[in-house]
Amino acid sequence: MNIAQMPMPPLSPELIARFRAIVGDKYAMTEPADVAPYVTEERGLYHGRSPLVLRPGSTAEISDICKLATSERIALVPQGGNTGLVGGQTPQGEVVVSTRRLDKIRDIDPSSNTMTCESGVVLQVAQQKAADVDRYFPLSLGAEGSCTIGGNLSTNAGGTGALAFGVAREMALGLEVVLADGRILNALSKLKKDNTGYDLKNLFIGAEGTLGIITAATLKLFPKPRSIETAFVGLKSPADALKLLSISQAEAAGSLTSFELLADIAVDFSVRHGIDIRAPLASTHPWFVLMELSSPREDARATLESILAQGMEQGIVDDAVIAANLSQRAAFWKLRDEMSAAQKPEGGSIKHDISVPVAAVPAFIAEANAAVVKLIPGSRPVPFGHLGDGNIHYNVSQPVGADAADFLARWHDVNAVVFEIVLRMGGSISAEHGIGVLKRDELPEVKDKVAIELMRSIKTLLDPLGIMNPGKVL
Amino acid sequence: MNIAQMPMPPLSPELIARFRAIVGDKYAMTEPADVAPYVTEERGLYHGRSPLVLRPGSTAEISDICKLATSERIALVPQGGNTGLVGGQTPQGEVVVSTRRLDKIRDIDPSSNTMTCESGVVLQVAQQKAADVDRYFPLSLGAEGSCTIGGNLSTNAGGTGALAFGVAREMALGLEVVLADGRILNALSKLKKDNTGYDLKNLFIGAEGTLGIITAATLKLFPKPRSIETAFVGLKSPADALKLLSISQAEAAGSLTSFELLADIAVDFSVRHGIDIRAPLASTHPWFVLMELSSPREDARATLESILAQGMEQGIVDDAVIAANLSQRAAFWKLRDEMSAAQKPEGGSIKHDISVPVAAVPAFIAEANAAVVKLIPGSRPVPFGHLGDGNIHYNVSQPVGADAADFLARWHDVNAVVFEIVLRMGGSISAEHGIGVLKRDELPEVKDKVAIELMRSIKTLLDPLGIMNPGKVL
Repeated sequence: MNIAQMPMPPLSPELIARFRAIVGDKYAMTEPADVAPYVTEERGLYHGRSPLVLRPGSTAEISDICKLATSERIALVPQGGNTGLVGGQTPQGEVVVSTRRLDKIRDIDPSSNTMTCESGVVLQVAQQKAADVDRYFPLSLGAEGSCTIGGNLSTNAGGTGALAFGVAREMALGLEVVLADGRILNALSKLKKDNTGYDLKNLFIGAEGTLGIITAATLKLFPKPRSIETAFVGLKSPADALKLLSISQAEAAGSLTSFELLADIAVDFSVRHGIDIRAPLASTHPWFVLMELSSPREDARATLESILAQGMEQGIVDDAVIAANLSQRAAFWKLRDEMSAAQKPEGGSIKHDISVPVAAVPAFIAEANAAVVKLIPGSRPVPFGHLGDGNIHYNVSQPVGADAADFLARWHDVNAVVFEIVLRMGGSISAEHGIGVLKRDELPEVKDKVAIELMRSIKTLLDPLGIMNPGKVL
Repeated sequence: MNIAQMPMPPLSPELIARFRAIVGDKYAMTEPADVAPYVTEERGLYHGRSPLVLRPGSTAEISDICKLATSERIALVPQGGNTGLVGGQTPQGEVVVSTRRLDKIRDIDPSSNTMTCESGVVLQVAQQKAADVDRYFPLSLGAEGSCTIGGNLSTNAGGTGALAFGVAREMALGLEVVLADGRILNALSKLKKDNTGYDLKNLFIGAEGTLGIITAATLKLFPKPRSIETAFVGLKSPADALKLLSISQAEAAGSLTSFELLADIAVDFSVRHGIDIRAPLASTHPWFVLMELSSPREDARATLESILAQGMEQGIVDDAVIAANLSQRAAFWKLRDEMSAAQKPEGGSIKHDISVPVAAVPAFIAEANAAVVKLIPGSRPVPFGHLGDGNIHYNVSQPVGADAADFLARWHDVNAVVFEIVLRMGGSISAEHGIGVLKRDELPEVKDKVAIELMRSIKTLLDPLGIMNPGKVL
């Protein structure tokens, strides 16, 4: 039985009152105007509905909510900053449990390089708290001003720092989780090594709130970088970008903290439609790389120059500029950060968040471009993303002058040709955004059959009534 | 019901023949002399027994073995290099499934920085294969000449490279696993980012073969270091060592690849009882640090000198020597590697493999030393280990002249006082060696109650008949 279709009883006024009693009147909302910010996401792509938004202030309150939900078979949708891109946080009639009031930093320990945050702590706040004790928390993504640590972990967020520091999963040493039945799993830990039984935390990381509600996490901290250098590079092809990546990794190893591949059309859209964005290079090139080195020593500049010099000698780098100051660096990143938004003025855009083995990226782009243009003549592939992670935001803009609705109606056709190539290359149809509802129906088709069986078994084990974020992921 | 006590039917000659038919006569052993190497571990601490050792040559054969074992309710013990220290690989009457013939490197991809190994590949071979394509596989431990990738992952091995590169779990991108019922989970993946559903691989990593048999893994590779520098440092206290660690991490970040804290008595035992081992420093000090930097550039020497100079200026480092050449570096590491064995000539030794938050290590050592000496006057704590991971091999040698058997009879008393301190500090009673049988009975006492409940549920879900390595972990 599809969990999404499991019948849930309606929420009676008496039940609403019982939930309200757990969090207090002030933090239980039923008025449409109060509920609205929790049921619509910022792009306006998903429109949800919910009879009740709860804003608990503690793990104990979340536990009580789950106990009541279990005893009365009421479905819950956990929500952090409501910035997800695949609809995982959007309710379809369920009660919303917002974790945003769980916003305490419980502990910060620079000697152990750990920080224990509650799940509602905003990512940017976590970054700042780390900086305040001369440490670095490297998770970084566009939504960092509003997304939360709980949401980052539930979706296993990636972002621009993943190349050197890994995805969100790799930054969590321990978790506190409220299970569907209200039990509290205390797996918080400052330990870098702990081999006492099965790993439980990784089940909840990336589960998009379908197995339990993450209420706190112990995160790894890193030494603060002393020198950061950023370059914007023009080159001929993704294959040359891959060679430059290889040189960069050999020279800089863990100091290579970002390596973004950008198609010229993506750069062009940003320059054309973004506010105050200029092309960093005077010359034109079919491809660009935005790369950054962060080092604990004052050697990032010398290393970056050596990498670029090697690239030029080998005929890989055609032109390059190193950011001369912080504002120029910010300008490079603004061009990159607005890349997704800058596709909107160009009409309909069909988006993918795929990954393939790093070495396969050039072949993937070539094959996907050919297949997409063959399917819809005149359509404009706009590939950009994290080459070092093999993760490309393979977006496709409509043909110039075409009807946007007609183009967007072919979303699944375009997905199909792109996903076929991705799967043939051993890739993933969702590298960093998750499954949510957007890709739920594709999941059984692209995933190993036994893996899907195990996922379903684990879902049934941890959430036998199907009350945790129903209809998402599986 | 304790899985260890679940009654298993005896192994009839007819059943032995059916297992034999799967792997072929040559690879099914029942003669005591042939079985012996698989039921005894090298220290002679665990003496097992088994009616049948199977040496399958493929994942398909392992799948067939599991199907037969499930249909006939026959218990299996998966085994790699048989080098585990907690008895996890030692059968107590079960059929042994040795993975050593699964020794193929299925794929090596330096551009993607990945290598897909079968589980029987010996760790040292995996290291060498990576080096052959100018890459680095950083997992490194004493048993690397005989332990296998499958065993490393099943026990989530740590070792001396964990400080910079993480434990075995962090080096696995994907797994292939045969489940108890013979289903084959294909979760092999070269992807650094893949958010398509629940994370399954981490359930099997560190599960010590109790949830399934790992048959292959895709591992991360890293750039090969170009300069490696190793120093042996004399200092006054673990607190000063912690300060030196902090300086080193700020200076070297990811280039700091080892940071081992050694008590003077541990160094003394190695020098006294090891063959051809000399004290690296002429002067005596109560504590030592063995530290290593590995860099992709030629800068390790300069960075190490800068760290040591700062340590001397701040009065933390009393004396230090940098290895002048490869043989001196090897000599430093030999002293460290023989530390455990060198305790044997000193009589009985009660061993612990604990971790605490890094910042708590000095307090842990001080409290544990006091408590142990109070419990057994004259007993000699010999702490050493991976300070950067908070992981100390807190071993205790018997009082000089005492009776070894009398001393070893107090193993659990000594454990009790040490574990009390570890738990109070938020630590782990098994940092890197696992639970096996050695610590199985302690696990429910030291672990969160809900965590134990979830582990038992997961065990029942994946191995309902209790045929996978029964009596281990849980």
